[in-house]
Amino acid sequence: MGSLREQGDGVSFPVITSRQNPRVKAVCALRSRGQRDALDRALVYGVRESRRALEAGAHPIECYWCGELYRHADASDVVELLATSGAECIEVSDEVFNKIAYGDRLDGVVSVFATPRRGLTDLALPESPLVAVLVGIEKPGNLGAMLRSADGAGVDAVVVVDPVIDLFNPNAVRASVAAVFQSNVVVATTDATFKWLDDRELAVWAARPDASQPYYNVDYTVGGAIVLGNEAEGLPDDWHGGESVGVTLPMSGVADSLNVAATAAVLFYEARRQRLVAARN
Amino acid sequence: MGSLREQGDGVSFPVITSRQNPRVKAVCALRSRGQRDALDRALVYGVRESRRALEAGAHPIECYWCGELYRHADASDVVELLATSGAECIEVSDEVFNKIAYGDRLDGVVSVFATPRRGLTDLALPESPLVAVLVGIEKPGNLGAMLRSADGAGVDAVVVVDPVIDLFNPNAVRASVAAVFQSNVVVATTDATFKWLDDRELAVWAARPDASQPYYNVDYTVGGAIVLGNEAEGLPDDWHGGESVGVTLPMSGVADSLNVAATAAVLFYEARRQRLVAARN
Repeated sequence: MGSLREQGDGVSFPVITSRQNPRVKAVCALRSRGQRDALDRALVYGVRESRRALEAGAHPIECYWCGELYRHADASDVVELLATSGAECIEVSDEVFNKIAYGDRLDGVVSVFATPRRGLTDLALPESPLVAVLVGIEKPGNLGAMLRSADGAGVDAVVVVDPVIDLFNPNAVRASVAAVFQSNVVVATTDATFKWLDDRELAVWAARPDASQPYYNVDYTVGGAIVLGNEAEGLPDDWHGGESVGVTLPMSGVADSLNVAATAAVLFYEARRQRLVAARN
Repeated sequence: MGSLREQGDGVSFPVITSRQNPRVKAVCALRSRGQRDALDRALVYGVRESRRALEAGAHPIECYWCGELYRHADASDVVELLATSGAECIEVSDEVFNKIAYGDRLDGVVSVFATPRRGLTDLALPESPLVAVLVGIEKPGNLGAMLRSADGAGVDAVVVVDPVIDLFNPNAVRASVAAVFQSNVVVATTDATFKWLDDRELAVWAARPDASQPYYNVDYTVGGAIVLGNEAEGLPDDWHGGESVGVTLPMSGVADSLNVAATAAVLFYEARRQRLVAARN
C-alpha cells in the first residue's frame, strides 16, 4: 500500500497518528447532522459500504484507512478504487482510526462522500413504475433497512417524505449498505409527493395495521406507490383518503404490528413477486 | 400509585433513591449474559414489552418504575398487572431509573422476568406446521426482529439453533417486543434439530442467496421449516444437502443480499399468504 499515497492527484499524505489532527476532528464532526448538512458530506463506515457507495455513483472525497484493522480481502482494492475515483486516501494509526470509528468494531476503512441532494424532479421512471414512499421515518436503522430492501426488490424509486432523521445519518448509511446513495432515492415534502403521484396517476397502496384489505389481494403490477408510515404513529391521515387503498399484513400472536422495515420488505417483495409471475405468464 | 406498594404479597417497598442500592446493582448486572444464564432472569425494558411478556405467559419477578418518566397512558395499568402477577413492584427515583435504563430513553418501566429454558421436546405442533429455524444468528436486533415477524406471521414454532448471542439479550427482547418469551420459541443444537425435523418428515426450505429456486415457486402449505442462516456466513453446508430445497429472493440493485431479518419477514409472510389463499379456495 506504500505507493497509494502517491496516487490520485499526485499529492502524498503523511500517516496521521494524532487524535488531535484537524482532519480527524473534521471527519469526526460529520457525525453531527448539522455538520453533514452544512458541508454536504456523509460518513461511510466499512469496506463493503464504501464500495457500494462508489457503485451507486456517489462522489468520494476522502478515505481514512488502517491496514492493521483490515478484515476483508478486498480492503486494499477498495481503497485503491476510492483513490482512482478522486478521493484523498489517508493512512491513520489504529488509535486515530478508532476515534473516527467511534469505538465500533470496524474493518479499517472509513470514507467521506459528497451527499447528493436530489428531489422528485430528478427521478426518471419506467413504464408502470413501482415506487416506495417512506413517510416520517424516525429510526436510522429502519430507514436504512427499508432502502436496502427497496434496492434488493428492484423498487424503481424511493421518496423519503419529511424524514425525522437525515438520509445520511451514519446508521442509515450502514443499514442501507450505502443504498441511500442510489440515484433513485430522493427527499420530498408531503404536498410535493401527493402532486407528483397524482400527476403520474400512480396507484397508492398505504400500509395500515387497521386496513381491511390483506396486502396480497392487491394488483401491484400497475404503476403505483407502496406508502409506509412512521414507526410509532403510522401514516398521517392525509394518506388515508382519496384514491389510496389501505393494505394490511395479517397478524397473529401477541404483537399487534410488525416492525416497519419488515413490513416494507414483505410489501416490496410481494409487488416484485407479482411482477415476475406476470412477466412469466 | 401510592397504594401499589401495598399490593402483591402485601410487603411494601420503600422508594429506592440510591444508585448504589444492592437491588439496583443486581438488576443492572442482568445486562451481562453470564448473570442472566446463572440466574435464569432477563430484563424487559418498556411498558409495551412488559405487557407482551406477561401475555406470552412469562413469569415476572420484579418491576422498577418511575412515574415521572411515564409516556404511555397504560404504564400504571401494566405495573399493576405485573404486581398482581406476583412481581415485586418497586418505585425508583429518575436517577436510579436512568442507571437501570442504561442511559436509553425509556418509558418509566423496566421489569425482570424468569427466562423459560425450553427445548424441542416442549414444542407442540399442529398438523402441517410452519416452522422457522434460525441458525447461528449473531445480532440481537436481527434475532428479535425475526421472532417478532414469526409471531406476526403465525409461524407455529421457532427453533433457534446454536445462537451466538443468548435469546434474552436485552436488545433481542426489545426488538422482538417480548415475542422471545413465547412458548413456541426454543433453543437447540444443529444435530438435535436435524433429527427433530426428520422424525416429523418436515420439508426444509433453506434460504440461500446462491439458490436457483425463487422463494415463491415453492409450496409452503405442507408441513415444513424455513431455515435462515447467520448474517455474515449464511447457512452452514450441513443445511444444503439431502432433502433441503434452497430458496432465494430475486435481487436487484447494488446489494447482493438482503438483511436476514428482512429475508425472514418475506419468507414467513409468503408461507402465510399461500396458506391463507389455500384455506380460502
